[in-house]
Amino acid sequence: MNHEPTCPPSHLALAHAMADAAASVVRPHFRKRLVIDAKADASPVTIADRDAEAVMRQMIEAQFPDHGIRGEEFGACRTDAEWVWVLDPIDGTKSFVSGSLAFGTQIALLHRGKPVLGMINQPITGERWLGMGCTATLNEQPIRTSETTALDEAILYTSALEQFDPAGHNRFAALAAKVRFTRISHDCYAAGLLALGSIDLLIESNVFDYDILPQMPIILAAGGLVTDWEGRPLTAATNFDTVLMAANGDLHQAAVEVLCRDRG
Amino acid sequence: MNHEPTCPPSHLALAHAMADAAASVVRPHFRKRLVIDAKADASPVTIADRDAEAVMRQMIEAQFPDHGIRGEEFGACRTDAEWVWVLDPIDGTKSFVSGSLAFGTQIALLHRGKPVLGMINQPITGERWLGMGCTATLNEQPIRTSETTALDEAILYTSALEQFDPAGHNRFAALAAKVRFTRISHDCYAAGLLALGSIDLLIESNVFDYDILPQMPIILAAGGLVTDWEGRPLTAATNFDTVLMAANGDLHQAAVEVLCRDRG
Repeated sequence: MNHEPTCPPSHLALAHAMADAAASVVRPHFRKRLVIDAKADASPVTIADRDAEAVMRQMIEAQFPDHGIRGEEFGACRTDAEWVWVLDPIDGTKSFVSGSLAFGTQIALLHRGKPVLGMINQPITGERWLGMGCTATLNEQPIRTSETTALDEAILYTSALEQFDPAGHNRFAALAAKVRFTRISHDCYAAGLLALGSIDLLIESNVFDYDILPQMPIILAAGGLVTDWEGRPLTAATNFDTVLMAANGDLHQAAVEVLCRDRG
Repeated sequence: MNHEPTCPPSHLALAHAMADAAASVVRPHFRKRLVIDAKADASPVTIADRDAEAVMRQMIEAQFPDHGIRGEEFGACRTDAEWVWVLDPIDGTKSFVSGSLAFGTQIALLHRGKPVLGMINQPITGERWLGMGCTATLNEQPIRTSETTALDEAILYTSALEQFDPAGHNRFAALAAKVRFTRISHDCYAAGLLALGSIDLLIESNVFDYDILPQMPIILAAGGLVTDWEGRPLTAATNFDTVLMAANGDLHQAAVEVLCRDRG
């Protein structure tokens, strides 16, 4: 018997339609010289980020006006609704404005606060990751996290070193010293790589709900774990101090031990 | 009157054929679990690296048995020949084994020691950068570096922080503190982004000829500069302590000033 919350077909169809619409907005701006504005947190934003979120919000309002929305660029409304959409129009804006492919549009659907659908869509390559219930797919093909359990064989990714505070950087560096190698600067694309078994660990710090919630249903359905650095479940919040994603339970435990060693 | 050394059509055709052949070898291994060996310098290598270089070397031997070859995986032969091919079958092996698209096959052709053809080929996306004489192209479309001249508007890339020695890291960090933002882990793909004007600066340290020589004709023909961190031309060598690539002369000068400030 499946106790997973279900996602109605109409909601899934809207997620796909929003990813398509956002991609149509983003693609014409790719590798064009854009005005790059700095937000309050100094992260960059462009007309592509704003227009892609705007078109997705309009689609939600038109089809499900009672659903809540929380988006990176235009804030929140009706977040106490039964269904809430979480939108990150371009996760990896620095990659996007660099012409790198390591970015994507992220969409999550929360049911009573719990993410029941997660989507990462790469507008240029056409790669679309979907996690829903027990199923994770890349372009409709089932995917599964890796079986790597030894830290010294694991590939670790993180989005950016500047996200860590000094104590966090030390804990990250302790883990980086134990793995096969570490790579940086892939944002949500790294979550996609973790879900399909190409990398083994993903670590983030000081991130927002729209960065992480769309990734959770994909990673979990693919067989991975998503917790904080102490191994505790992520509780509903608009930001997360620490996030650890691991391909499997053994590797997760090994990573938590290193992250928590020598702590008071 | 054009005094650039010319590259015969047969040599260009071989470069394209080798990039095609290497791509056919690499593609089936992408996002498959591979045995990752560590080389003497601790960099990773796989059967895809080795087989891709082997097929390119066989093609050179069959068509131009008097040409020299220097490859990342199988060393050098006839390097005193008039024409010498420089081969990096997978530049960005860490990205490749991670399932990231930030890698490529690199090919340079040297005429009496001077690079006259450079090629970067991304086997999965089909992006092919070519630099030859005064022409730089991405998939046969002309490309040009950016006109960004202010450091605080520039986007800086570097392949990996672990390449820097402590003094080098300090100099890199001084430059990183002046630019709009810095991104890491893209290897040759970043040189492609620089050539097409999407990023503005690329900095490397302790790299080899096969990492850099294939990029030089592309960057130069696209309007950029390639020097060491002091702004001096790179002289023929099998390794380079420092490499700076810039979109244009003004930005290059500004970067050299920061890299050389406070030096004895």
